[in-house]
Amino acid sequence: MKKLINATETVLTESLDGFVSAHSDLLTLGEEHKFVRRVQPKAGKVALISGGGSGHEPLHGGFVGHGMLDAACPGQVFTSPTPDQMLAAAEAVDGGAGTLFIVKNYEGDVMNFEMAAEMATGEIMTVLTNDDVAVETSTFSTGRRGVAGTLFVEKVVGAAAEEGRDLAALKALGDRANAATRSMGVALTSCTVPAAGTPTFDLGESEMELGVGIHGEPGRRRVALASANEIAEEMVTAILSDFGDQAHGGDAFVLLNGFGGTPLMELYLMFNAAEQLLARRGVTISRSLVGNYVTSLEMAGCSLTVALLDDELRRLWDAPVHTPALRWGV
Amino acid sequence: MKKLINATETVLTESLDGFVSAHSDLLTLGEEHKFVRRVQPKAGKVALISGGGSGHEPLHGGFVGHGMLDAACPGQVFTSPTPDQMLAAAEAVDGGAGTLFIVKNYEGDVMNFEMAAEMATGEIMTVLTNDDVAVETSTFSTGRRGVAGTLFVEKVVGAAAEEGRDLAALKALGDRANAATRSMGVALTSCTVPAAGTPTFDLGESEMELGVGIHGEPGRRRVALASANEIAEEMVTAILSDFGDQAHGGDAFVLLNGFGGTPLMELYLMFNAAEQLLARRGVTISRSLVGNYVTSLEMAGCSLTVALLDDELRRLWDAPVHTPALRWGV
Repeated sequence: MKKLINATETVLTESLDGFVSAHSDLLTLGEEHKFVRRVQPKAGKVALISGGGSGHEPLHGGFVGHGMLDAACPGQVFTSPTPDQMLAAAEAVDGGAGTLFIVKNYEGDVMNFEMAAEMATGEIMTVLTNDDVAVETSTFSTGRRGVAGTLFVEKVVGAAAEEGRDLAALKALGDRANAATRSMGVALTSCTVPAAGTPTFDLGESEMELGVGIHGEPGRRRVALASANEIAEEMVTAILSDFGDQAHGGDAFVLLNGFGGTPLMELYLMFNAAEQLLARRGVTISRSLVGNYVTSLEMAGCSLTVALLDDELRRLWDAPVHTPALRWGV
Repeated sequence: MKKLINATETVLTESLDGFVSAHSDLLTLGEEHKFVRRVQPKAGKVALISGGGSGHEPLHGGFVGHGMLDAACPGQVFTSPTPDQMLAAAEAVDGGAGTLFIVKNYEGDVMNFEMAAEMATGEIMTVLTNDDVAVETSTFSTGRRGVAGTLFVEKVVGAAAEEGRDLAALKALGDRANAATRSMGVALTSCTVPAAGTPTFDLGESEMELGVGIHGEPGRRRVALASANEIAEEMVTAILSDFGDQAHGGDAFVLLNGFGGTPLMELYLMFNAAEQLLARRGVTISRSLVGNYVTSLEMAGCSLTVALLDDELRRLWDAPVHTPALRWGV
């Protein structure tokens, strides 16, 4: 295992120390590294909290700040945070208007966020993200997995929370944004969890895992390495068939997301391939992001996320945001 | 070779097509993919042009926009652009106030930018960056290599150009910013140039290349993989010894730069290590960036850049910027 670390036990805490120090204008750490939260919480605003296993950076800590999350709870690498983390975060960022949890659909996360919601004193609602069209159940999930589309949900709900929308409205918006979003990924290599020390899965020199999960979970099938155009074709087809009639003739937000080990050159090349295929099927990209946003440590590969836009979602996507990983209009 | 590409011959052009399409609000392509430039050049402003081999994305194209570069000329991967590219870019972004080339110190780049400057009709000056303290001469360079510190030079000179400073003043500022900047890198793995198809260099399972160049050029020495703290110690020591007395008691900009294949978690952990070591030697980090900014395709590893700040450099760093890879205040 070749990693820039001191000891596997301290990877997370040392990384969080560096993260919060590099962004001390925006973020502060909760006690015992339980969460990162905005330096300046906003009274009267619904608090937005997400979290999950670490190793997907910048998700979620990198999306804490104005116009997005109020706090994020980092678990150990690829391991759910514990309920006391969410509970401590909820107390710390409570603005008196209730709390919305945004949770990726994995059994550990769902269970632990639910426990925290039951233990909390304030009102809590939850949006579950499950944008991955690759498989219907997986190693760590019953039902579809929540993957890179979570970024879109956090952004639009975060913008609406900043505008003062109430808890029930934000929950409804989050569900609607999630329902408008589909993703699919491909891995060219595995990643190595520091505490494990060996690759999560084996992939032959000329193989790829189509529909891979963000923890290296199996996808739809393992096939011979294909061209960028063929991979994009497979992703676009999977996503658009899943949308069915909804996707025709509209505009979309597209996230061409790197898993951590693929050069930006290749991500833009994949974006180019996906854009042409989408255009041919009547979907115009009106908003986009290309880069490493929801990663799997150093895994090589990428995912395509398509979110169908309407006037409200487009406006909320465009709204000002100031976080470590996304910033505009501020 | 596992890459998300269609054919090695079209990697660069397909990637540039995707890049410009994803950022069409900011950028446009020159004919024959010779350069990318700002959509809206500014009359009366000195034009800033950089470029170099591709594979270091987001450098340089990702830094084209308000407050930074006017154009960037991408060569093939790790190969200098040709003089006709710089010439075409200079013509396209000429604002009537002269042109400043910002060139990383590699023989091919220096020669080709010089030829372009000789062929051009307008007034051209050049800032050469050579921030890498690792070695005094290298595979592709006579004298020190220009590496990640180039980002700092492009940012501060870009801000000053936006304010209307003249060509000679910008040349002097660029030289001063470069002189205030030092970098050093480490590689844990090689990268693979698409056209070559095999790794640029071999590195044993428990080895690292200390002082590596951004094309995988040899560094100071090849040693056993060390801890993050030990690596940070080596980098900080190399950089601060090179600064000598200049570095005492001031504040600095630090770029903890990923080479493309190292997870963000590890980069923040390295930032944490570097910050503590710098503090112990009297250098406070007042501005920072952590992430993949000057990459070597999918190489695992990172570099540390330290730029000593004064009031002017700090103010220019903070000035608004709006490019694909850096954005604030706009």
